[in-house]
Amino acid sequence: MIQHYRFGHPIHTGAVLDKPTMDITPVKDFPGWDISPSNGSLSKTLSESMRVFGLGETVRGMNKRGWIYISNNTDDPNHDEDKRSLYASQNFILLAAPEEEEVEGIFVDDPGTVRFDIGYTELNRLTICSESGNADIYRFTADSADEIVRQFRAITGQSYIPPKWAFGFGQSRWGYKTEEDIRTVYERYRDASVPLDSIYLDIDYMERYKDFTVNTESFPHFSDFVEEMRKSHVHLVPIIDAGVKMEEGYETYEEGCEKDYFVKKENGERLVAAVWPGRVHFPDFFKPEVQNWFGHKYQFLLEQGIDGFWNDMNEPAIFYTEDRLKEVFEEIEKYKNENLDIQSYFAFTNLVSTLGNNPADYRRFYHEHEGQSIRHDKVHNLFGFYMTKAAGEALRKMEPNKRILLFSRSSYIGMHRYGGVWTGDNKSWWSHLLLSLQQMPALNMCGFLYSGSDIGGFGADCTEDLMARWLSLAILTPLYRNHACAGTRLQELYQFQNLESFRKIIELRYALIPYIYSEFMKAAVKNGMYFRPLSFIWSKDSRAYEVEDQVVVGESIMLAPVVEQNHNGRTVYLPESMKLLRFKAWNDYTEEILPAGTHYVECRLFETILFLRKGHVLPLIKPAKTTAELDYASLKFLCYDADPKDYTLYNDDGFTRNLPFTF
Amino acid sequence: MIQHYRFGHPIHTGAVLDKPTMDITPVKDFPGWDISPSNGSLSKTLSESMRVFGLGETVRGMNKRGWIYISNNTDDPNHDEDKRSLYASQNFILLAAPEEEEVEGIFVDDPGTVRFDIGYTELNRLTICSESGNADIYRFTADSADEIVRQFRAITGQSYIPPKWAFGFGQSRWGYKTEEDIRTVYERYRDASVPLDSIYLDIDYMERYKDFTVNTESFPHFSDFVEEMRKSHVHLVPIIDAGVKMEEGYETYEEGCEKDYFVKKENGERLVAAVWPGRVHFPDFFKPEVQNWFGHKYQFLLEQGIDGFWNDMNEPAIFYTEDRLKEVFEEIEKYKNENLDIQSYFAFTNLVSTLGNNPADYRRFYHEHEGQSIRHDKVHNLFGFYMTKAAGEALRKMEPNKRILLFSRSSYIGMHRYGGVWTGDNKSWWSHLLLSLQQMPALNMCGFLYSGSDIGGFGADCTEDLMARWLSLAILTPLYRNHACAGTRLQELYQFQNLESFRKIIELRYALIPYIYSEFMKAAVKNGMYFRPLSFIWSKDSRAYEVEDQVVVGESIMLAPVVEQNHNGRTVYLPESMKLLRFKAWNDYTEEILPAGTHYVECRLFETILFLRKGHVLPLIKPAKTTAELDYASLKFLCYDADPKDYTLYNDDGFTRNLPFTF
Repeated sequence: MIQHYRFGHPIHTGAVLDKPTMDITPVKDFPGWDISPSNGSLSKTLSESMRVFGLGETVRGMNKRGWIYISNNTDDPNHDEDKRSLYASQNFILLAAPEEEEVEGIFVDDPGTVRFDIGYTELNRLTICSESGNADIYRFTADSADEIVRQFRAITGQSYIPPKWAFGFGQSRWGYKTEEDIRTVYERYRDASVPLDSIYLDIDYMERYKDFTVNTESFPHFSDFVEEMRKSHVHLVPIIDAGVKMEEGYETYEEGCEKDYFVKKENGERLVAAVWPGRVHFPDFFKPEVQNWFGHKYQFLLEQGIDGFWNDMNEPAIFYTEDRLKEVFEEIEKYKNENLDIQSYFAFTNLVSTLGNNPADYRRFYHEHEGQSIRHDKVHNLFGFYMTKAAGEALRKMEPNKRILLFSRSSYIGMHRYGGVWTGDNKSWWSHLLLSLQQMPALNMCGFLYSGSDIGGFGADCTEDLMARWLSLAILTPLYRNHACAGTRLQELYQFQNLESFRKIIELRYALIPYIYSEFMKAAVKNGMYFRPLSFIWSKDSRAYEVEDQVVVGESIMLAPVVEQNHNGRTVYLPESMKLLRFKAWNDYTEEILPAGTHYVECRLFETILFLRKGHVLPLIKPAKTTAELDYASLKFLCYDADPKDYTLYNDDGFTRNLPFTF
Repeated sequence: MIQHYRFGHPIHTGAVLDKPTMDITPVKDFPGWDISPSNGSLSKTLSESMRVFGLGETVRGMNKRGWIYISNNTDDPNHDEDKRSLYASQNFILLAAPEEEEVEGIFVDDPGTVRFDIGYTELNRLTICSESGNADIYRFTADSADEIVRQFRAITGQSYIPPKWAFGFGQSRWGYKTEEDIRTVYERYRDASVPLDSIYLDIDYMERYKDFTVNTESFPHFSDFVEEMRKSHVHLVPIIDAGVKMEEGYETYEEGCEKDYFVKKENGERLVAAVWPGRVHFPDFFKPEVQNWFGHKYQFLLEQGIDGFWNDMNEPAIFYTEDRLKEVFEEIEKYKNENLDIQSYFAFTNLVSTLGNNPADYRRFYHEHEGQSIRHDKVHNLFGFYMTKAAGEALRKMEPNKRILLFSRSSYIGMHRYGGVWTGDNKSWWSHLLLSLQQMPALNMCGFLYSGSDIGGFGADCTEDLMARWLSLAILTPLYRNHACAGTRLQELYQFQNLESFRKIIELRYALIPYIYSEFMKAAVKNGMYFRPLSFIWSKDSRAYEVEDQVVVGESIMLAPVVEQNHNGRTVYLPESMKLLRFKAWNDYTEEILPAGTHYVECRLFETILFLRKGHVLPLIKPAKTTAELDYASLKFLCYDADPKDYTLYNDDGFTRNLPFTF
């Protein structure tokens, strides 16, 4: 059952479909909740055993109790556990407890700041507050978590489906500058016989960080090079930034000015913000004509053979605005020649440290939305969604028959119809290894099925053992990309000592592609989840609710990866008997049936353990150098009290759009 | 056996005693090691099962493999897992493996930068490198880890012993400004019947952050107030900073200038650095006369009834130097009116963000050490040690019969003879809850027995459940202090909902004081450890080496606290049968014998679980409002296959120095 309650006068965000496939009932209150329209809040007392899931890409565990989360899309590379906001706002939570018959979901459709105080102020109290007091609130009730997720998708739409090659291994690094750099990556993987489907182009491929340009000095024959890679079934995936460089003679800039496509300040002047190229304008993605214009700009790269993109810096990230920078330089003057003590020293350094992503800057500009002028901060969390919608809709027009890879850093619910997400600038931390697992079910719940974290970690230095464990942990994660920040230790797999062992993990990934692709498609088409917390399946098992480092992936597999350094195994909780598959390589593995209960399971470095559920089947294929080269004739099936016939395998050409996808 | 090898021409640090109680043999090499005197390095191949313990106060687990640690004392409040340096340099490691008969220790006595590459560059290679190439290296070999620790203490000296009240509960916060603020803390704990032994005075008690002053506006009758608290057996513990404010008429400053006691630059001018009060000079703690002078300054506070101190900012922390600040203001000019792009924007912001603790500033000044002028960076890691030695030696002269509480933020081996340490500015993070447990054995190994982390976390906002779990985890930690940073959520226990439940945990702490005090004294007097990794006891049990979230405390207790949010229990590894004690309150507990193996053990919020070892005894006493008021007639004993007579209890008046302390 879906109920709807409205605070104030919310804008139409597009998160909810114009024609949902389930009925929505307007109501005057929600049973069990205290609603206070005057301060835009709703709250509820939680039983001790009640768990709160959801919120997509946030810090902390799968159970979100014990913190305040604030939806306010932010470019913050330090995903510490005390952060309240990351890049995304996915305002959907799900409440479940082992002793409750009913599961409940809440979606707050408000693109401004929304606070979720989940047992922070009071241990057993949940309070959700819309800062503006304008929000559409949807309440879902059903007898299972899976059903709540289906209801939610029925009103917000089916998830984006990428091409099949997007499930292969990808290599990325901010720092590849030239065609030769990229070719080296390709060749070193090829020479080591490590499968690879894609190489990512970070900001340096552009000419001075200008969208829809290619640096012709470092990529003198770009389309030839794209073609050269494509012949080996390797796809190049360029980044697209939200800000458009201010530069005379740069077409996108000049056209945008001419057609009045950029966001403006109250006084009618275009906002001058800055990111990589320095001064930029932001397209007003709230206008349909701007969406159409910007989206069709991707044509420039499609024409050169590109078939995948990642949208970045679209919170939008702001290094500074010209107005604020001027103020800061003026204020700095005051501190010259002073004795800077505790107050004045921090006041001075804060001037500079708060230049980036300053809240005041997000109040300096306006959007035009359905005829209304709206100050940016009130609709802030839609910006990345609308940029990606712009791309997604235009790509559908330009390539009506071909799936194009598209994912984004910033997001809002609704964007899941147009693209996936990656979880932004994580770090080479063991805690982020675990976090990357915990974020997946939360993202899936919110509709974002095509997702993944930067394997090995983006910031900080990766160690060989962390890389090995991360590749194993993410072995079933749809977006399977090794990515790192400029200035960090090189972390392509061939930079480490045990390349052979890494190859075996990547080969296992490719051996699992038939399962990954089948299960992803089922989740997408049936409005289900690909990653699930254990408690979504064993909903009466109170121990299952405690488990924060194991997930179920698809119908057959439970993952319980090693997430701590210097460990040769881990304890695992089995809600029921499962078959432990321990892989040293895709074709070198052992099978062992374990009873329900708590087990210490050995898992040495470079080994991958999977738990096959009873009554289920895992298909395995002989690996190939790319997903395109997989030979489905080589399929075999691992079973635990099941028959290969019990498994519904899905496959297709890997790129055609609009297949029937029925099961 | 203790061997000694020398690189270059190291200075005499005082870490090793002039008269060690064990022989040290000079050698030409260390068996099994590759020594390269030309680049100041020694290295060794590690078997896969070899563990490396030690390094005192560092990030990451008890087993230090898989990272580079750099000894370079640094005031860094972000103890993320990729940090290489924190406040302390404790260059002692211990190597052990289940299949090895011999345990090995290495101590690098070099007060400059030392790198420990423990399987970072190569998974199975340990390389230690003295940057300056001047170091005394000591190698220890024995048949047990405990024996290595005893050998190490035999040459570096016995650990500092605090007064008994220092084991009671302490409350602290940067933000208590007045006598009234402090009285409120006292009264609110008293009114709630929560035991309390101490309240800490952070920087605001001073007059404009000047050492050895008291702000007479906010503390108009300081000594009366100290006396008022002392009557209730509550001790006030003021902070002492390393920097001396430059201010005409301020005695310490004027005297220091007059007597030439402050550090100077190459040109002979006194270095102008800045911390809380703005511009300061640093005492040259390397000169014996300065140590004596500064140490005797504590008299000002002793005279007012104070009997405990914490030395802070003694890495030394530097907000900026006057010289660097001037350069920065000049360089900032260049960026005015420019289009700040990726290069120039980061160059500009880095100018300001690198002002604090800038490596170049540590090369701007000199110390006089045994007649030599030495540039600070070459002996950097001794600064906090010598400040605390100054205090410790003077306090011994001024109070020859009374133990005075003294601990420090910065440290180096040798300082453990003069005071304890706290682990600096941690955060209200669950990962730091675990870290605080992992740091204890490492600190103990290095001689720092009196230690602890800020309970509830210093930076970031503490939640009620984190506070509860932290108080339980630290239930046996010598320094048991709740401390928080200005600007964070208030975290005195009475700020939360379940004060009654908190009281029960604190009462349990007091019930355990006889055990804590006895075991601490045994460790101190016998040159042993109070906190030990499991593998130090079960040295042939390979599972015991994997355990990173359990420790043995004293002879009787294994701790296995809950370290994850939203968990009602945890899995515990028992190397042998133990008795599980589950406390809801000091006098409300259950006992259950568990066999060796892996168990899921319930432990709900506000419960504390302890594991009593077989053949051992745990004394328990009726709690009192302060440690001074404990009635030892109320002692009782919990036993597992043991008799109360099997336990050696230690007690004394709690403050007399130089007791025989024999067992």
